[in-house]
Amino acid sequence: MILRLLAVAVLALAASPALAAVTATAASPDKVLSVTVTTDNDGQPIYSVSRLGRPVVAPSKLGFILVDAPKLQRNFEVADQQTRSVDETWDLPWGERKSVRNRFNELRVSLVEKTPLHRRLDVVFRLYDDGLGFRYEFPEQPNLQAARIGEELTEFSLVDEATAWWIPAYEWNREEYLYNTTPVEEVSVAQTPMTLRTKDGLHVSIHEASLVDYAGMNLARAQDRRFRASLTPGIGEAKVERALPFPTPWRTLQIADSAGGLVTSSLILNLNEPNRLGDVSWIKPMKYVGVWWEMHLDHKTWGSGPKHGATNNNVMRHIDFAAKHGLGGVLVEGWNKGWDGAWFADGSEFSFTQSYPDFDLAKLTDYARKKGVVLIGHHETAGNTVVYERQMEAAFDLYKSVGVPAVKTGYVADAGGAQVLGADGKTHFAWHESQPMARHHLRVLEAAARRQIAINAHEPIKDTGLRRTYPNWISREGARGMEFSAWGQPGNPPEHEANLVFTRLLAGPMDYTPGIFGMKTKAPDGVATTWAKQLALYVVIYSPIQMAADLLENYEANPKPFKFIEDVPVDWADTKVVNGEIGDFVTIARKDRKSDDWYLGAISDEQGRVLSAPLSFLDPGRKYRAEIYRDGEAADWKTAPQDIVIEAREVTAADVLELKLAPGGGQAIRFVALGKR
Amino acid sequence: MILRLLAVAVLALAASPALAAVTATAASPDKVLSVTVTTDNDGQPIYSVSRLGRPVVAPSKLGFILVDAPKLQRNFEVADQQTRSVDETWDLPWGERKSVRNRFNELRVSLVEKTPLHRRLDVVFRLYDDGLGFRYEFPEQPNLQAARIGEELTEFSLVDEATAWWIPAYEWNREEYLYNTTPVEEVSVAQTPMTLRTKDGLHVSIHEASLVDYAGMNLARAQDRRFRASLTPGIGEAKVERALPFPTPWRTLQIADSAGGLVTSSLILNLNEPNRLGDVSWIKPMKYVGVWWEMHLDHKTWGSGPKHGATNNNVMRHIDFAAKHGLGGVLVEGWNKGWDGAWFADGSEFSFTQSYPDFDLAKLTDYARKKGVVLIGHHETAGNTVVYERQMEAAFDLYKSVGVPAVKTGYVADAGGAQVLGADGKTHFAWHESQPMARHHLRVLEAAARRQIAINAHEPIKDTGLRRTYPNWISREGARGMEFSAWGQPGNPPEHEANLVFTRLLAGPMDYTPGIFGMKTKAPDGVATTWAKQLALYVVIYSPIQMAADLLENYEANPKPFKFIEDVPVDWADTKVVNGEIGDFVTIARKDRKSDDWYLGAISDEQGRVLSAPLSFLDPGRKYRAEIYRDGEAADWKTAPQDIVIEAREVTAADVLELKLAPGGGQAIRFVALGKR
Repeated sequence: MILRLLAVAVLALAASPALAAVTATAASPDKVLSVTVTTDNDGQPIYSVSRLGRPVVAPSKLGFILVDAPKLQRNFEVADQQTRSVDETWDLPWGERKSVRNRFNELRVSLVEKTPLHRRLDVVFRLYDDGLGFRYEFPEQPNLQAARIGEELTEFSLVDEATAWWIPAYEWNREEYLYNTTPVEEVSVAQTPMTLRTKDGLHVSIHEASLVDYAGMNLARAQDRRFRASLTPGIGEAKVERALPFPTPWRTLQIADSAGGLVTSSLILNLNEPNRLGDVSWIKPMKYVGVWWEMHLDHKTWGSGPKHGATNNNVMRHIDFAAKHGLGGVLVEGWNKGWDGAWFADGSEFSFTQSYPDFDLAKLTDYARKKGVVLIGHHETAGNTVVYERQMEAAFDLYKSVGVPAVKTGYVADAGGAQVLGADGKTHFAWHESQPMARHHLRVLEAAARRQIAINAHEPIKDTGLRRTYPNWISREGARGMEFSAWGQPGNPPEHEANLVFTRLLAGPMDYTPGIFGMKTKAPDGVATTWAKQLALYVVIYSPIQMAADLLENYEANPKPFKFIEDVPVDWADTKVVNGEIGDFVTIARKDRKSDDWYLGAISDEQGRVLSAPLSFLDPGRKYRAEIYRDGEAADWKTAPQDIVIEAREVTAADVLELKLAPGGGQAIRFVALGKR
Repeated sequence: MILRLLAVAVLALAASPALAAVTATAASPDKVLSVTVTTDNDGQPIYSVSRLGRPVVAPSKLGFILVDAPKLQRNFEVADQQTRSVDETWDLPWGERKSVRNRFNELRVSLVEKTPLHRRLDVVFRLYDDGLGFRYEFPEQPNLQAARIGEELTEFSLVDEATAWWIPAYEWNREEYLYNTTPVEEVSVAQTPMTLRTKDGLHVSIHEASLVDYAGMNLARAQDRRFRASLTPGIGEAKVERALPFPTPWRTLQIADSAGGLVTSSLILNLNEPNRLGDVSWIKPMKYVGVWWEMHLDHKTWGSGPKHGATNNNVMRHIDFAAKHGLGGVLVEGWNKGWDGAWFADGSEFSFTQSYPDFDLAKLTDYARKKGVVLIGHHETAGNTVVYERQMEAAFDLYKSVGVPAVKTGYVADAGGAQVLGADGKTHFAWHESQPMARHHLRVLEAAARRQIAINAHEPIKDTGLRRTYPNWISREGARGMEFSAWGQPGNPPEHEANLVFTRLLAGPMDYTPGIFGMKTKAPDGVATTWAKQLALYVVIYSPIQMAADLLENYEANPKPFKFIEDVPVDWADTKVVNGEIGDFVTIARKDRKSDDWYLGAISDEQGRVLSAPLSFLDPGRKYRAEIYRDGEAADWKTAPQDIVIEAREVTAADVLELKLAPGGGQAIRFVALGKR
């Protein structure tokens, strides 16, 4: 047998008079948030959270099921508590702002079992004014050498009635869903971030930070408004296996009065470890075009044959275009051998070093270099990490040798999940958010970093802010991207991006691939936005790499609106949310890192709107030329998406613009700073 | 790598013109229910269900995730379809009725993959007028020798808005919850049976039948009213491991116009295999008392010491009482060594053959035999099946040798789940509804059957009708029993039993242990019913073994109401539901198997009610003496539970009784047939 407790433990049935349990409390620096940690009558650790004196999270349990030892759940007592405070500022090498303030109060609660096993578990809370994170730390100890975790018992018991924006977990092996908007009580099992708005207008987002060597956390609603962690299964009996000591990822709650307060929070980044890569000046934010959208429209194919997209001629055409329009990169998919079989079911046929004969990597990278453009590499793995890891070092060496500075990876894995190597030496199917995949992604990041290559992962593991630690994790997908509006099925509805900003994008940058002018696709409704909204997306959706995703001919035919795409930066000194409601609309202003210019993007859902935008974010007293790309009078995503008005006027910080957005519309503005500061 | 498909499969992205898929349909014998099975554009098998032409289950997917092979999900076509009809009647050796009609139309749909693997999967539907079952059958085939199932992809996409009665899955390692009553859209992950009432009053219960060598199915709500199967995890990577060929359990939908129609359905029994044990006349339904409630009240202990309950004197007192009052059995818990340590965390200390020194098994069984009473054995395992199985044969031999004909088993397993032996020879934690536990329970049943011993499992795997195949599986727990109202925490509320009848009890008999007269317990509200309701529970809650659970002194002090417990049978010739609404009230009439007498039980929730009960179930033209046990004028579970009126009157089938039930009240009636037929 696996247990042999000598103790006479407390019978579950017996009512033993409880001694008053120790209670630990802490508050955030400005006393906005506070947390209480204690143990209940069964000795089960519980925590609760209040904001400005009002409960937000009711007493919620903490603990673990282990697969080879008694649960870490009951019979605990608080053995020690410690606090500390931090206030520091650190810089983002690239990002939505230049520097980040990291100001928190920390509470460490050391729990010890009252049984003879005397196992120990620390819970560490970091309280910010705009949110909090907590994680478990398993200290080294005699009666627990390794944790084989069956389930994490962390609960989130929400106090107030609320609306939830969420996507389901465990449904399909990706994160690509339309968001549900339901009462909290109608959530089933949700991926994170899950975002809520209480009936009193408090905005809450539950997620995690620093998912390293652990399983991704989903939120299973147990009852009413009580959620419990549901870790993504791994390939063995345990969902997580770790030798002690180790910390779990941070469980995070962003809490704000407004939807915009969630967007401007740096909680997730702050809870990640600092940059581990040293000098990362080699990582270059950029815009890019690609041999890509034409495949989604069936004009070209990934595989070889008469419609092969990745030919020398086609790639050179893209390089010429990028050079002419000042875009930094050209992505080419379908360049390598392995696309002609059932690649998406297997991935075993992919070569990551051998090109199709009509694609000459050395010649094309030379050609690009001479034009001041780089090629962006592509590694579609079909989720087969075993095949990929075997070739990965050579593949990155190849790219390094020809000067490819960034790689888009892909994990389409529809056969049964991703494939990973087990301890048994065999290949096993795995969920994208499993512990083996968390490990895999960091192996890729490290191998790429050794060659100064950045990674943009599609069908990835979810973002938990690891770009702070690994700044070469430059972007990723992890939600329904633009390509869903290309395929022969319902595409992304007009509200989609207004959902993303307050859900998926709270996790980190997304390579959404905006900039479509050719609205008619195989999708019944085509691309369901106006042109002005497509431009606004470059500001609204943050990513340090942004694609100009459409066919080149659509840009060549429409140089005036395309000028915004040419102008808009991808690296920012600051970010302000002007207004916004989840799933309805949002206006974001960002300041260029390389100039004094500001940019603004506003988007709406299927409703037309007039939004008031005070320009108080501009430098006071300075004049700006506002280059405005707005929906025309007839603009409507259904009937006249291309109706765009481009005009300029002079403005100052004292002005308030009235942004008129069409149904499915938007507005993009460049504020060119005039004169000197 | 594990996959090497040679095929050029259809690219997920490519729009290939779909040929019209084959559609298979079938209807129930009276054309009440019909099912349609086909494949969608991706070749994914889907089914839908209609009742009287109205859709009940919208197109819902079928399939499997395998952990070591591509999913059985897409690229299928219907290769063959076969139908057959059955109309037969079979007898229950004991039960809520004497014989059961098994009348259905069957549709077998043979699916074959269009890919080179050409894997095959049959789906078999059995259509009854009051419900349907379907299961997968994995035929023997070259490209799939064993199924290692990661998840079953079966969906149940419900068409109509509905209220759901449900308990959560994966919360705690038991089934002991209060029922939630919520809109379907507020279900998270539910155990089965889950029962629903649509806005148009259709009653639906989703469950499974014949859970043999497979994992129990839970229902995870994916979105809106769409549920998908969530199999209970096992101890390895796969939730289910089976060599081919094999069938899955039946996935069942009972569908009725009234709540009572669910109760009288024999769907679950019909979908189980016939009796495998041959002559089972040795299985004796009975009532029993026990050394049990006094432990829950802390008057006695399971463990040794000054308050030990299972002493010779105390057991003889119970035998004397049973003999005097015509009750057949005496259950004794805490008789065996192992109760003095942390038994519930481990179970490793239990001996199933060694008595405590103050309990003499041979002497007590002799004493009982002379009085015409049997002892009911007790095997508490604490969920440690490894320790139990090692001793099981000897333990049953011992009981056989002294004439113990039935054993109550127990699986309290709070340390981390049940414990089972893995293929690695080590002990692993397991959920109660896992495949290893499904196997364990049948090993116990078979070992017991070889000694002509019946099993009443507490903290069991859920009931799926296996009592048809193994009639010695005489009852089980698997829900919150009466003991919850003994403990120092909120007990079962007045609506609890009116929920159970239409949820848990649809699965099979429950050893609920009614008959409490001492309403004041450690629970804040005590036992939340009237005395009349306690009596009614013997009719309302079906079980072939029924405990008179209270302290003997409470019966001795109240012989008049106790007479109903003496009189009421535990084996029935027929069952009728007179009226009922889920969670509100129910009236059930049952006919004794051994006489022409009928019995009626009516119960209410926290509301007082007047229910009309037409006696049309009685033999027409015959006179009966109705011995009525009804709530008195002042009766109320809160203030006067003991206010009971006992009276008699003569009735015939033409009479309609007006049953006045107090808040938390009930009524029990014995109809003694007068004269000859």
